[in-house]
Amino acid sequence: MSPDDLVRLKLDISYDGTDFSGWAEQPGRRTVQGEVQSALARVLRLDEVQLTVAGRTDAGVHARGQVAHLDVPAALWEQEADRLLRRLAGVLPADVRVRAVGPAPEGFDARFSPLFRRYVYRVSDAPGGVDPLRRRDVLWHKRPLDLARMNEAAAALLGEHDFAAYCRRREGATTIRALLRLEWVEEEPHLYAGTVQADAFCHNMVRALVGALLAVGDGRRETDWPGRVLAAGVRDSAVHVVPPHGLSLEEVAYPPDAELAARAVATRRVRTPAGEG
Amino acid sequence: MSPDDLVRLKLDISYDGTDFSGWAEQPGRRTVQGEVQSALARVLRLDEVQLTVAGRTDAGVHARGQVAHLDVPAALWEQEADRLLRRLAGVLPADVRVRAVGPAPEGFDARFSPLFRRYVYRVSDAPGGVDPLRRRDVLWHKRPLDLARMNEAAAALLGEHDFAAYCRRREGATTIRALLRLEWVEEEPHLYAGTVQADAFCHNMVRALVGALLAVGDGRRETDWPGRVLAAGVRDSAVHVVPPHGLSLEEVAYPPDAELAARAVATRRVRTPAGEG
Repeated sequence: MSPDDLVRLKLDISYDGTDFSGWAEQPGRRTVQGEVQSALARVLRLDEVQLTVAGRTDAGVHARGQVAHLDVPAALWEQEADRLLRRLAGVLPADVRVRAVGPAPEGFDARFSPLFRRYVYRVSDAPGGVDPLRRRDVLWHKRPLDLARMNEAAAALLGEHDFAAYCRRREGATTIRALLRLEWVEEEPHLYAGTVQADAFCHNMVRALVGALLAVGDGRRETDWPGRVLAAGVRDSAVHVVPPHGLSLEEVAYPPDAELAARAVATRRVRTPAGEG
Repeated sequence: MSPDDLVRLKLDISYDGTDFSGWAEQPGRRTVQGEVQSALARVLRLDEVQLTVAGRTDAGVHARGQVAHLDVPAALWEQEADRLLRRLAGVLPADVRVRAVGPAPEGFDARFSPLFRRYVYRVSDAPGGVDPLRRRDVLWHKRPLDLARMNEAAAALLGEHDFAAYCRRREGATTIRALLRLEWVEEEPHLYAGTVQADAFCHNMVRALVGALLAVGDGRRETDWPGRVLAAGVRDSAVHVVPPHGLSLEEVAYPPDAELAARAVATRRVRTPAGEG
């Protein structure tokens, strides 16, 4: 091992997004990236630390399964491996935690290797309001919701489509995405979880899809409406983008180790420079 | 129905105890009782409202299954029945919710009719710390916990005993309680829930029992230690009373309607004047 050898570390990260201006570093703002990078710099005694993340979550969005990577000198990792997690726990604020850290497999790239990202949006239609202990990660919907209607509407959106109707427009960025899963289950009485899984998402896509489905669930729209909006291919002002606090990045799934590098090359080709995770 | 007829209402209440000085009203303090009473007074346009509660939880303790009762003029209830829940949701702060409200069965008394109260204490020994979205209701324990050891120690505490060793002393109050259930399960990886069920609890009892069991779980004490402390019958300074934020009142169970009044009379006889819920 030469003194210049680097090791790539994979970090599993969870956060309560309530008091963060999202993942991505911004001058003068409290961000998850900023907090985790400064904790790492302090614990590893490095001047600067740069994380690459799987999902650049918006302000107010939570994560239970965020993934990032970081390259550090191999000698430093060897020295800190046994105590890094515990020291980070002592330095990080309580609303962000590094759950696991360790060497990433060869070819791993947190941003470009994922097979899919899985988000969950949680909403409650309890007549008295949201369980107080869940009010930070569950939206209250005052009208009763019909899950069967929402799932019927959701089924029509699955597959590879141009999701321009559900994306905030960005110059030159593709809005073609493969929607792998979109379904609602009742986790507890009156507490519904909508799972949205795709290879990648364009901006606001999950919250716009959920907004369209809630309008179906409470009877304001017919079940074929979200599919008709998709087919029209342009933003529809009738689609309400739901608030961020019901949304959580639950999982980032990577292919088997042997396929990591190939997957990263393929993803990079499709989505650079204008795509986003 | 005469204009003076009263109806007894049963309220199911949930709260995040973090920012409350407990259930019980205290001058100049923000309490759950105070917030719910003033919301009810406002919505029902009454000068004063007095709630009777099943479990007077301490500062910082949560509830998912608190129960209270309230007597109101029957005519007023008839007029408000359809909209009371929704109006309370609009008036109450987000950290307390009335989940259900309706006429109580004949003979119902929130404080004296219960068969048992069920509390759950949640603790995580995840090396990186508590899931940020659960940090308000889960204690972090830095040392790894062995659930089998905790359950072995817990089994020796079941049954009717004098729990003086686990109670904060109060002049004249009995400390004899029937401990119906005390067991730990793993709800998620590294997240453990200890269920503590009894007819009633003396002050600090649940948090002292949990403190003794955590000392067994992380290996600082042998499995027979909590039972030996119980048998000694006096407070042991080695029993650490765990922080309130891991504790939640999950359920108050009442007997079948026909037995409510008899149960209340029997409980009142045993626990008045010095007993507590």
